[in-house]
Amino acid sequence: MCGIFGITGHPEASNLAYLGLHALQHRGQESAGIVASDGEHLRSHRSMGLVADIFTAPVLEKLPGEASIGHVRYSTAGVSQLKNAQPLSVEYAGGQLAIAHNGNLVNAPELRKALEADGAIFQSDSDTEVIIHFIARSKQPTFENKVVEALSKVKGAYSLLFLTQNQLVAVRDPYGFRPLVLGRLRNAYVLASETTALDLIEAEYIRELEPGEMVVIDEKGLRTSQPFAPTRLGRCIFEHVYFAKPDSVLFGTSVYETRKELGRQLAREQPAPGADLVIAVPDSGVPAAIGFSQASGIPYDVGLIRSHYVGRTFIEPQQSIRHFGVKLKLSAVRQVLKGKRVVVVDDSIVRGTTSRKIVKMLKAAGAVEVHLRISSPPTSWPCYYGIDTPSRQELIASNHTTEEIARYVTADTLGYLSLEGLGKAVGDTERNTFCTACFSGKYLAGQVSPEVAAQSAKDSAQSGAVAAEVAVATGPETVPGKHLTA
Amino acid sequence: MCGIFGITGHPEASNLAYLGLHALQHRGQESAGIVASDGEHLRSHRSMGLVADIFTAPVLEKLPGEASIGHVRYSTAGVSQLKNAQPLSVEYAGGQLAIAHNGNLVNAPELRKALEADGAIFQSDSDTEVIIHFIARSKQPTFENKVVEALSKVKGAYSLLFLTQNQLVAVRDPYGFRPLVLGRLRNAYVLASETTALDLIEAEYIRELEPGEMVVIDEKGLRTSQPFAPTRLGRCIFEHVYFAKPDSVLFGTSVYETRKELGRQLAREQPAPGADLVIAVPDSGVPAAIGFSQASGIPYDVGLIRSHYVGRTFIEPQQSIRHFGVKLKLSAVRQVLKGKRVVVVDDSIVRGTTSRKIVKMLKAAGAVEVHLRISSPPTSWPCYYGIDTPSRQELIASNHTTEEIARYVTADTLGYLSLEGLGKAVGDTERNTFCTACFSGKYLAGQVSPEVAAQSAKDSAQSGAVAAEVAVATGPETVPGKHLTA
Amino acid sequence: MCGIFGITGHPEASNLAYLGLHALQHRGQESAGIVASDGEHLRSHRSMGLVADIFTAPVLEKLPGEASIGHVRYSTAGVSQLKNAQPLSVEYAGGQLAIAHNGNLVNAPELRKALEADGAIFQSDSDTEVIIHFIARSKQPTFENKVVEALSKVKGAYSLLFLTQNQLVAVRDPYGFRPLVLGRLRNAYVLASETTALDLIEAEYIRELEPGEMVVIDEKGLRTSQPFAPTRLGRCIFEHVYFAKPDSVLFGTSVYETRKELGRQLAREQPAPGADLVIAVPDSGVPAAIGFSQASGIPYDVGLIRSHYVGRTFIEPQQSIRHFGVKLKLSAVRQVLKGKRVVVVDDSIVRGTTSRKIVKMLKAAGAVEVHLRISSPPTSWPCYYGIDTPSRQELIASNHTTEEIARYVTADTLGYLSLEGLGKAVGDTERNTFCTACFSGKYLAGQVSPEVAAQSAKDSAQSGAVAAEVAVATGPETVPGKHLTA
Amino acid sequence: MCGIFGITGHPEASNLAYLGLHALQHRGQESAGIVASDGEHLRSHRSMGLVADIFTAPVLEKLPGEASIGHVRYSTAGVSQLKNAQPLSVEYAGGQLAIAHNGNLVNAPELRKALEADGAIFQSDSDTEVIIHFIARSKQPTFENKVVEALSKVKGAYSLLFLTQNQLVAVRDPYGFRPLVLGRLRNAYVLASETTALDLIEAEYIRELEPGEMVVIDEKGLRTSQPFAPTRLGRCIFEHVYFAKPDSVLFGTSVYETRKELGRQLAREQPAPGADLVIAVPDSGVPAAIGFSQASGIPYDVGLIRSHYVGRTFIEPQQSIRHFGVKLKLSAVRQVLKGKRVVVVDDSIVRGTTSRKIVKMLKAAGAVEVHLRISSPPTSWPCYYGIDTPSRQELIASNHTTEEIARYVTADTLGYLSLEGLGKAVGDTERNTFCTACFSGKYLAGQVSPEVAAQSAKDSAQSGAVAAEVAVATGPETVPGKHLTA
Repeated sequence: MCGIFGITGHPEASNLAYLGLHALQHRGQESAGIVASDGEHLRSHRSMGLVADIFTAPVLEKLPGEASIGHVRYSTAGVSQLKNAQPLSVEYAGGQLAIAHNGNLVNAPELRKALEADGAIFQSDSDTEVIIHFIARSKQPTFENKVVEALSKVKGAYSLLFLTQNQLVAVRDPYGFRPLVLGRLRNAYVLASETTALDLIEAEYIRELEPGEMVVIDEKGLRTSQPFAPTRLGRCIFEHVYFAKPDSVLFGTSVYETRKELGRQLAREQPAPGADLVIAVPDSGVPAAIGFSQASGIPYDVGLIRSHYVGRTFIEPQQSIRHFGVKLKLSAVRQVLKGKRVVVVDDSIVRGTTSRKIVKMLKAAGAVEVHLRISSPPTSWPCYYGIDTPSRQELIASNHTTEEIARYVTADTLGYLSLEGLGKAVGDTERNTFCTACFSGKYLAGQVSPEVAAQSAKDSAQSGAVAAEVAVATGPETVPGKHLTA
Repeated sequence: MCGIFGITGHPEASNLAYLGLHALQHRGQESAGIVASDGEHLRSHRSMGLVADIFTAPVLEKLPGEASIGHVRYSTAGVSQLKNAQPLSVEYAGGQLAIAHNGNLVNAPELRKALEADGAIFQSDSDTEVIIHFIARSKQPTFENKVVEALSKVKGAYSLLFLTQNQLVAVRDPYGFRPLVLGRLRNAYVLASETTALDLIEAEYIRELEPGEMVVIDEKGLRTSQPFAPTRLGRCIFEHVYFAKPDSVLFGTSVYETRKELGRQLAREQPAPGADLVIAVPDSGVPAAIGFSQASGIPYDVGLIRSHYVGRTFIEPQQSIRHFGVKLKLSAVRQVLKGKRVVVVDDSIVRGTTSRKIVKMLKAAGAVEVHLRISSPPTSWPCYYGIDTPSRQELIASNHTTEEIARYVTADTLGYLSLEGLGKAVGDTERNTFCTACFSGKYLAGQVSPEVAAQSAKDSAQSGAVAAEVAVATGPETVPGKHLTA
Repeated sequence: MCGIFGITGHPEASNLAYLGLHALQHRGQESAGIVASDGEHLRSHRSMGLVADIFTAPVLEKLPGEASIGHVRYSTAGVSQLKNAQPLSVEYAGGQLAIAHNGNLVNAPELRKALEADGAIFQSDSDTEVIIHFIARSKQPTFENKVVEALSKVKGAYSLLFLTQNQLVAVRDPYGFRPLVLGRLRNAYVLASETTALDLIEAEYIRELEPGEMVVIDEKGLRTSQPFAPTRLGRCIFEHVYFAKPDSVLFGTSVYETRKELGRQLAREQPAPGADLVIAVPDSGVPAAIGFSQASGIPYDVGLIRSHYVGRTFIEPQQSIRHFGVKLKLSAVRQVLKGKRVVVVDDSIVRGTTSRKIVKMLKAAGAVEVHLRISSPPTSWPCYYGIDTPSRQELIASNHTTEEIARYVTADTLGYLSLEGLGKAVGDTERNTFCTACFSGKYLAGQVSPEVAAQSAKDSAQSGAVAAEVAVATGPETVPGKHLTA
Repeated sequence: MCGIFGITGHPEASNLAYLGLHALQHRGQESAGIVASDGEHLRSHRSMGLVADIFTAPVLEKLPGEASIGHVRYSTAGVSQLKNAQPLSVEYAGGQLAIAHNGNLVNAPELRKALEADGAIFQSDSDTEVIIHFIARSKQPTFENKVVEALSKVKGAYSLLFLTQNQLVAVRDPYGFRPLVLGRLRNAYVLASETTALDLIEAEYIRELEPGEMVVIDEKGLRTSQPFAPTRLGRCIFEHVYFAKPDSVLFGTSVYETRKELGRQLAREQPAPGADLVIAVPDSGVPAAIGFSQASGIPYDVGLIRSHYVGRTFIEPQQSIRHFGVKLKLSAVRQVLKGKRVVVVDDSIVRGTTSRKIVKMLKAAGAVEVHLRISSPPTSWPCYYGIDTPSRQELIASNHTTEEIARYVTADTLGYLSLEGLGKAVGDTERNTFCTACFSGKYLAGQVSPEVAAQSAKDSAQSGAVAAEVAVATGPETVPGKHLTA
């Protein structure tokens, strides 16, 4: 997943990008980058790591100018590489260009193959790089036209920011999969994945970009257009369920309030009569747990404490004391749980291994019953539109019944929110403005075809091989009876 | 403040110390250290920074042996120095010795002066170093006797761990200011500041050390004694209010449940009739806010979101965008707060500047009224027993009325828990088993005399001067009308 | 300047590349990189800095395979950027490809412009990147043919190594500007800029690649061809004068012996009758100083000591003690110099500022006369073929007479080797097998046209602007009377 | 070995200490430190590593004041520890104190034991720490008197600098083992191990401190005294042979000229008739090789090239390509050596392994005969006065004849300078002003008694065990027939 931020018209453009990216850090912790324009040159700094560690004062000083775009990136794909960090920046016939992308293009493998056949060379594994090639090859007279031509060839999810020496261009795909909001800070225009970034820099929220909208900001001011054929909406429902920061306003509604409503709906659909208390898996499960408590009347309490000190660098020591896993991050509050029948609310179950550890931890701390409630439907399908999910066979819900999952995670009962309930909670009863592919398998913008996906995985492994740094994935845990990886 | 951990009788003593210190990281984030004994030699590693960053696998491999002690340290004193990191380790006539100390000795300046007059040299600014000198100078026949003789000379707060080549010794001062618990992990004994460290390594909790108790563990097993004259108890009430981790059992009761009770009592004493919701300043204010909600019937909700990505390294960029302060750490949930009369619960107010920023943030997010409720009495007196508080004149409550503070922090109303209510909530109605000096000014173990304190401050500044690394304190914010520093 | 190394057929290909690059470190200290092939994937690691710091054991372990190429790079251009580090590695229609280049292409700006006009995008400022584009666009059936087609379009200096999943290709331009030698280590073939790299890994020296020769090594073995139109030779004479390591055999003759011969010839042309001793500017001036001593009969001695501890990171402290410059690197031996008439031999004078400091240092140490002798002709023209020289106006010899230079550097006399003498010393009396452009202005492969050069400088500044790290150039020292920058 | 530097009376005292230590870097590369006084406080920075890497501008800015002392340290002892880095700085009854020591105290183990018995605690393994304890325990009225009393108890080699808030004190032991010179830079006094440090900062050389002299510099100016009983001189002859920098003036004579004279004398004593050329093992063997050439008439040439890029961090890769050792540092010049009978001059042979590799390298490069000449007598005895030599059984000359050594190092002939010749060359024909213990076994200031040495070794291992960082020694190479470790 990724977060993007852009600003133009402010003398401290890079400093503000830095703050904005910090506010969007939850959208990607693997790498971060900022490109700034002083009207003549683009200057770039990208690195693996967290925004606050990468952008020190001396680094920011080397990124002068009144316009900048920034990007934070996260990939579970196992291969972390600097070359895939964004914004990408290149030179082409039109001058200098940088691009920051949130989303994923489903036809990137085919497009890449075609471009390569036509002599293009690729330096990253990123799907984003094809867009730059199409812009560079476009014969359109203006940069905006080049962008439109390039994007007319790609399919999938994209919220994009482009920076040239003198223009900042923002585009959102016609489905509106990924969010992108527009704000103002005095004379400057600001673009960000979420409103929380506007709030931090005290910018005024103007509006969300429309799906399919393109905004161009330059010396002539801001102008907007709708250059793409309209289609039905496909706003990512998982942003509301889990991904976005709770204080953001997303697709027009409050993330926090939506999550509480998910919890309320969940309580109605999957009650836990007789339970003594409702707790959350912190922090993401908190709003839904409060909603569940409100709707059910079962008191809310804190049964799990989250450590503030677990970073990506935490290495478990060897041998007998391995496998501390989630225990390093969460600790159970014995006195709250002891002898209690506990409802524990989480936003989703991916592989099931973390849920299993949490349930066991709660029981070890004295809970006599653990009723796991999930504020979304079973996650059964991989996302091809920008969220990093494992393959279908790794998703426990894709090949196990709820009962089997309950047994695996050792919960006394397990209840998921229904797809209908989800739609209702987000105010889309017909479920025709959101993308629910991860729950329903309905892929609005197509999916990567099996052959291409396989080839793509191979390509990705190959090009992933040209990597300076390789993150090591931790091993699976086997579920007896079925071939389920962790 | 500090956290300590010790273990003996386990082949992975250093690995477990590392995990234990990670669990105690909330007690000190400035430096960390582990000393291990393999029966013949002590080996040490100390460094500035967080446990998870300092103790990599190669570092832990160089700390072999079946016994180890560890320490995490935090100091707000403005001067961060490696030489003050613990455990301190020295050689003396009795062999090798390491010491880890949680607490503060009030007569350390006098003792240091006397020792220096007798030819002692000091390499740190730490009060702890005097204990080592007294041990080295003791003519007592055994190490235990040396320790008892040394401690008979010091006054103040100490939970201590000593490691020699073949003994692990734990002592708690007669007042019992700081916690120290004993546990068992198979054949190993474990000592830790809080039970949360036992829980993480799955050690069994045996009991808290008694105030004044000394425990010696060596090849002969564990033996205990009460070598000091008994006195009244003075367990630190601020551990319950703020410092300890909520999942710990402290002084025999649950920290989390105690904090909820503080909130309930606060609701009774300082109600906020007509308020729409109760929110917490996360994470420390959450239990009391839930208690307040339960007792008042006003719904609990989440109005402030805490970022997971604000570390000590976060440097604010210069110039116009300075002073982001608490905004980088907390963001307000507009839709929860908009148009609402909000009760916000925090554990304490120190200088008032953070509270002021939080109240302003809540109002900027739409709260129409902000009623600040504090789950402890006004913090009016500095702690001389181990908690890092600023000097009396920096404590806003020491020279301002509650009304003045309310006006400064721009809250509509401000209510503190009473001292009586605090006692009641922790089950000490008579308030004769806890130390309440920071609220009451009653210093059980004496305080540092003004002259000595002044001299000590000067000494500290001087010796602080022999520093490799100096942390920069951020500037004050002026309160109109009174000379109050931030 | 750059150094390149390649090996195929050895299970420790990356380890040997690391050693080979270490031996070639004198050819470039700014960045280093290795790409390895395991037959299926290329893996790459590039970084700013020295070989020995970059390639730690864990890094080398991530570069498995039996074939590898490596590169060290140095640029005085003021802009140091990771993106310009080599080997460059890309994916294109033909698979994965890495390239390492020593030399410089004079028509790269035009080619780049043309490629951009045809839709190509560039991620580095490197002239080398155009070669990759031409390979990617070639319709030739085999990789070798693609390389030949691509190279038929470029003009200038290139010794190149290409690595694909299963081939190692080496090419030297028809002029033979830059060296490239072939060796064997048991079953492996080795390619390196200089023989010193073969010596370190104990590989057997087979021969230098012929100018215009292309060598392909794959599972079928080694085959060679001469795919380019023949031309006169233009081997870089400055490699012999200064650049190559003295223990290397270059263009068929010993670098060390050649330099001594330069010194002998210099003594004949520019004697210093009455001088007491000959000293060198260490280390590069040592062989010529010994040769001068041998031919003149004036005793050789050591008057300047070179420090081993001056790295690139040495930062001079501020204020009054600035400008230590060459003094941090060289110290004068007072007792050798005191009261003496000294001949000091250096290989060349670029801006004159270093020579000036050295002469002053010698006089401050007691030398009564300083006779500066330069073992090459005046450096009056910039190199367009791979050596980093400043622009023409910065070269002191391009706009000052020898007498003026002598006065500026405060030498009692100054003598350069003649172009004729240089030719004679390297065994090319007709001077038709070497390139002498930096001395003569005769550019064999064309030079960058003034307009293009200007544009290129501008482009370079622009694209240089897209830099993560910018090296700061030190300030000029003014020569009274003429506008000469240091 | 160590180097020390002090300055008082200059506003940039720390910056100059930094430059001075850089000039003395050859005396110790393991750790470096500076302590500065601003008249009220001492501030310190010590770290493992090189001066130029440790003292960045921000670090130096934190060391204000007009007086400073600095130290560079090297230890071959296998255990590198920050706690042993100097200057040591402490607080004691007299205030703040820092100390920098070059030399070694032979009775430190006994003194330490006695101090510990009297209650002293030790935080380092350094012999220097006992001096501080004696100062702290002294009842003398002034600091100077305390220093004299303390030093009256120690035996061995010491050139010392002490810094208090307002005094800089320099002392040299009565034997004058280690050098220490006094200089002036405008109003400031400068003290340094060698004159090369004065030269770098352009300070004027006043004179060497007399053996047994104590110099005190404070607001009253500079005063000198001779507080110790006079004894015969014992200036370290190995400083002239190898340790000091050639451009320094040491014990009144030029190091470089002395080394040349050693070479001349060597040529007279150990001629190599029929040899074609004389080469040096660079850089330390160069002056003696030139002297040898001058006296013998055999031409001097360069047969070995030293790499500038071999730092302490160079890690050899694993497996088959191990054991590159000296090859990474030196390369042979084939064309100089081929077919030649070569005299190679080095300053000393310690274990013999390096000499063996060098001789083999010369033969592999084509030398038909290799005649090894050593410009000092056989090194048969360990130094107890400050130079890091291995134990007696590791010194090849302590238990092998010259013939055996020649055979081991595979030289055709091997010749050492005689002790008489050495004395003559340094102008001490009677050999009663120099310490020659490493060659003669005559220990002027006593040696560490075998029992104490053994105990000390054990202590050292023990306390060495309290180490954060442990340097790994490389493995031995076996000499057939005798149990000689490398």
